[in-house]
Parts: sequence; C-alpha cells; structure tokens
Amino acid sequence: MTEDSILAALRKRLPASSRQLVLGMGDDAAIYRPRAGQDLVFTTDMMHEGRHFLRGYPAEAVGWKALARGLSDIAAMGAKPEFVLLSLALGPWVRPRWVDAFYTGFLELAAQSKVPLAGGDLARAAHTSMDVMVAGSVPAGDAFRRSGARAGDTIYVSGQLGGGLLGLRSPRHRAARRRHLRPEPRIALGLALRKRRIPSAMMDLSDGLSTDLHRLLVASGVAAELDGPLPVFPGATEDDALHGGDDYELLFTVRPGVRVPATLAGQSLTPIGRVTAGHPGDCLRQGAPLPPLGWDHFRT
Amino acid sequence: MTEDSILAALRKRLPASSRQLVLGMGDDAAIYRPRAGQDLVFTTDMMHEGRHFLRGYPAEAVGWKALARGLSDIAAMGAKPEFVLLSLALGPWVRPRWVDAFYTGFLELAAQSKVPLAGGDLARAAHTSMDVMVAGSVPAGDAFRRSGARAGDTIYVSGQLGGGLLGLRSPRHRAARRRHLRPEPRIALGLALRKRRIPSAMMDLSDGLSTDLHRLLVASGVAAELDGPLPVFPGATEDDALHGGDDYELLFTVRPGVRVPATLAGQSLTPIGRVTAGHPGDCLRQGAPLPPLGWDHFRT
Repeated sequence: MTEDSILAALRKRLPASSRQLVLGMGDDAAIYRPRAGQDLVFTTDMMHEGRHFLRGYPAEAVGWKALARGLSDIAAMGAKPEFVLLSLALGPWVRPRWVDAFYTGFLELAAQSKVPLAGGDLARAAHTSMDVMVAGSVPAGDAFRRSGARAGDTIYVSGQLGGGLLGLRSPRHRAARRRHLRPEPRIALGLALRKRRIPSAMMDLSDGLSTDLHRLLVASGVAAELDGPLPVFPGATEDDALHGGDDYELLFTVRPGVRVPATLAGQSLTPIGRVTAGHPGDCLRQGAPLPPLGWDHFRT
Repeated sequence: MTEDSILAALRKRLPASSRQLVLGMGDDAAIYRPRAGQDLVFTTDMMHEGRHFLRGYPAEAVGWKALARGLSDIAAMGAKPEFVLLSLALGPWVRPRWVDAFYTGFLELAAQSKVPLAGGDLARAAHTSMDVMVAGSVPAGDAFRRSGARAGDTIYVSGQLGGGLLGLRSPRHRAARRRHLRPEPRIALGLALRKRRIPSAMMDLSDGLSTDLHRLLVASGVAAELDGPLPVFPGATEDDALHGGDDYELLFTVRPGVRVPATLAGQSLTPIGRVTAGHPGDCLRQGAPLPPLGWDHFRT
C-alpha cells in the first residue's frame, strides 16, 4: 500500500465532477460552486478505534457509520447534503482488504444519500481513526438551529430511542445491532420538516436524549418538562431511551398551534413534553430533575 | 474537563458571527453564506501524535502547524481562507494546560490569517490527533489546479527548500526549527499570483519537491527537466531541498512569455526547470532520473 496507490484505486470508484462539485479528489483542495440564494452548512465528526468502534467490527459498518454521523447533523439543520471530505488514519493492523471494505460501506451510504466524496486526507497512525466533513445546502436563512425553542413549544422526537445503546450491549439483538452499526440518518425527514416549516428548533440525537435536550435547552435559554411516554426501541429500557447515544433520530420543538403529522417521511413523530420558562437547561421528567447522563467523552 | 466545559471556554475566545459566517461553533453545523460569483475550495489535513508531531513539542506549535497545513493548500489554489473546522482528539496524557496552549497557537495563526474557527468535533482517544478543514473562496473559475501544466512551461518554486527537514533533524538550528514547527503558509503570495494570473498550474510543497512535482506532472500528463540550482534553505543540503517535506512553499508552472518577478509578496520566486512532453510524471535532474523520494505515509 502506498498513499498514491490507495487514492488512485479510490478515485476509480468515484463519480466525475458535477455542476456544483467543479473539482473532486486529487488536487490540493476540492472546488465547489454554490447555487445563488443558498446557505451552506458544515459539520465534522470523528470516530476513533476503541472509543467509537472496535477492531472486530465489520469494516463496511465502520465506513457507513463514519458518514452517517455527519449526515445526521446535516439532517438536523433541515439541509440537503452536497459533498463530503474524508480524513482516514490507518493503524498498523489495517490491511488493504479492510480499507476496501471501509470504502465500500462509506460509498454505499454516500450513493444512497447522493453525496459525492470530494477529497480528504490519508495517513498511517498508531490507531485507526477517521474524521468526516459533510457540507449541505439550504435556502438562505432556513437552516434550523438549537436556539429557536420558546416556552410553550412542544418537544418531539422522531422514531424510537434506546436502540443504539441496546445494540452496543446486545450484539445478538439484530434490529438494535443494525441501529448501532448502520444508523440511518434522517435526511428525508429533515427536508420534509423544513418544507412544512414545522420545527422552531432542531438537533440530532447522537449522545442521548437527556444530554442532547439539555444542550438544546441551554442554547435556547429555556427549560423543559417531559411527561408523555417515550417511544422506546423494542427490547430497550426507558433508561436506554433517556440516556443512550447513537440513535441518530431528530429532536425538535414546535410552536403552539402548528400541526404535526403522526408520521412524516416514514418516521413516527412523538410529542414527549413541553418547553418551559425555567432555569436554562433544567429538565423535569415526571416531576423529578432529569440530569444529562448521556455520552460525554470527558466524563469516563 | 468535560466536553461542554472545554467548548464553552473555547467559544469565549472566538469572534462572533460575521456577514459570511452566519452561525459559528455550538450547533449541529456551522452556517456559511457564499458571496455571488465565487467558487469555494475545501481541504482537510490531519496530524497524528508520533507521526506528525511528538508529545514533547510545544503545544502552541502543534496548534499553529495543524492550521498552517490546511492554509497552505488554500494558498496553492490562489484562494482567500474563509473559515475553518477543527476536530481534536485528546490522548490520556493531555492536561487542560496543553489544550489551552494548543488553542492559543491555533487561534494565533487563525487571527493572523483572518479565518474564523466555525466549529468541529472534540473527543478523548488513545492518541492525540487533529483534523483541520479549511474553506476558501476564489472568483468562479479562477482556482489553480495541479493539472494545468503544458510542455514548454517554466517551473518555479517560492522561498527556500529543505528547511522543514533540517528543522526536524537539527532542533538547535533556530531558523530551520521555526520552519519545522511554525511554517508560514503562503496565502498572500497565492493571492498575488492569482491577481497577476501568473501560474498555469500550482500546488503547495508539503511532502518534498521530488514527490510533489511528480504529482503535478502526473496530474498534467507531462514530464520535466530540472536544471537550474535549487534555492536551498541555509544549512540544508540539496537532498533536503529535493526530498524533504514540511516546507509549505508554492510550486507552480508558467507559460512561455509570462513575466515573473524575482520577488512577490515578500517571497523569492526561482525558476528551477521546465515542463517537457515525456512520459507523465518522469523528471530528469541534470540528466539523471529523479525518483519521488519525499514523504509517503505508507512506504516506511
């Protein structure tokens, strides 16, 4: 394996340039031509061996998930993914077959999401890790933020929660394992919510509801009360749904009077509580304080 | 250290949003509003502990260089840097003081280059590493590429070569050490070359002249002959200048008849050879084949 040979093999698997992506992989930088009247949104997400995935995981799943995490952030902005950059560091145990399978999983989700791989970086390192940058587009001014919630809004989540943690804990639970290894970013749902102008604030659930909701509340300067039953992933516990990460569902708030369908873009939408005027970030669950106990890289 | 506390401290050191950077750090994604008539260019560059820097390096220098590498790619496109995303993974040995000093070096170069830090990612990992994404802008269609060289063009380099490798080898050589630890990306030079429409192809020198020139020649489908003396960094050898990495000077080609000043934006510009019609990628140095012996992550 040489750097140039790995990249030459990869380039053969990529589509040619497009109207927006003027120049893809192979130069000092990719060139993208924006459409008039659009804002661009940008996010990066890392995965590290031993933290976000294990050496024994299927390489296709690692590639898929590396991209899914960034696409989920783009979905949370209500944006359409435009292109992606991949920085990949290969540990000493990595063989060409692993690299090939990693790209297969990555490019499978890229093709499904119609997002071209436009460039990135490649290196040898002591551990395997990757960082994925996803760019998306949205009509100017229409991107959703975490900071738009107001007291009186209703809080919603899409889909079912807790499956990501269940799949980590129970490798034999097939549906949950799939949720853990190959999460489906809610791009179509994010776009549908934007077109109907439903959310007042939105973010994706990657670190667990209790932690992510806390962040949304702090950003908006509001508090919350959760009362309704949570949509729990079959087989998971309510604690999994409250604090488990890796679900990649959407969390959003809705102004009073705005109609929210029970299902949109194939995903159920469940009201789980309401925004209140309390101390920013505070959350009550059935009357008791709900601490943010989701994933924090620096706590453990 | 918690993830949210590190990021809260960092956000206090950052400028607020601007006309182009509508939303910076703190949401699922940053929001950037492009100017009409401009292309955007994007690059990512990783650095890994033990590969690109050592634990004992000054943390300010690590932060500076992590950004300098990406800015150098933007300079090579003839683009103006617009914003940057930083993904940072902290190894178990990293203390808050190191993080603070890393950000100091990073933000020092960011301020000097007028490029806001717009977001990124943060994690604990087994090793310290970082990935920096830099976005730049250029009038539509005006970005330089590696693929524009033609037989008959003259080959130029900016500044002096070999100092990066000399600084790695000789920690006591102060000027070379500075080149190794705190390289100065040639942004002003890249912009000046674009405004004068001098280059037919351009790239930055990060992996060594012999390897990077080989890449430019392959991209352009041409060969080259180097004959003139190289501008060697004081104290470095000619081999350092031919094969040493980490110089972050600009390599470019110029059509016959185009006038090139001896100095531009404070950097000397030296003709080192000419583009020929031979086998793509082949390079002769004073009549003998010059193999690409610069840095390749996968060779050693």
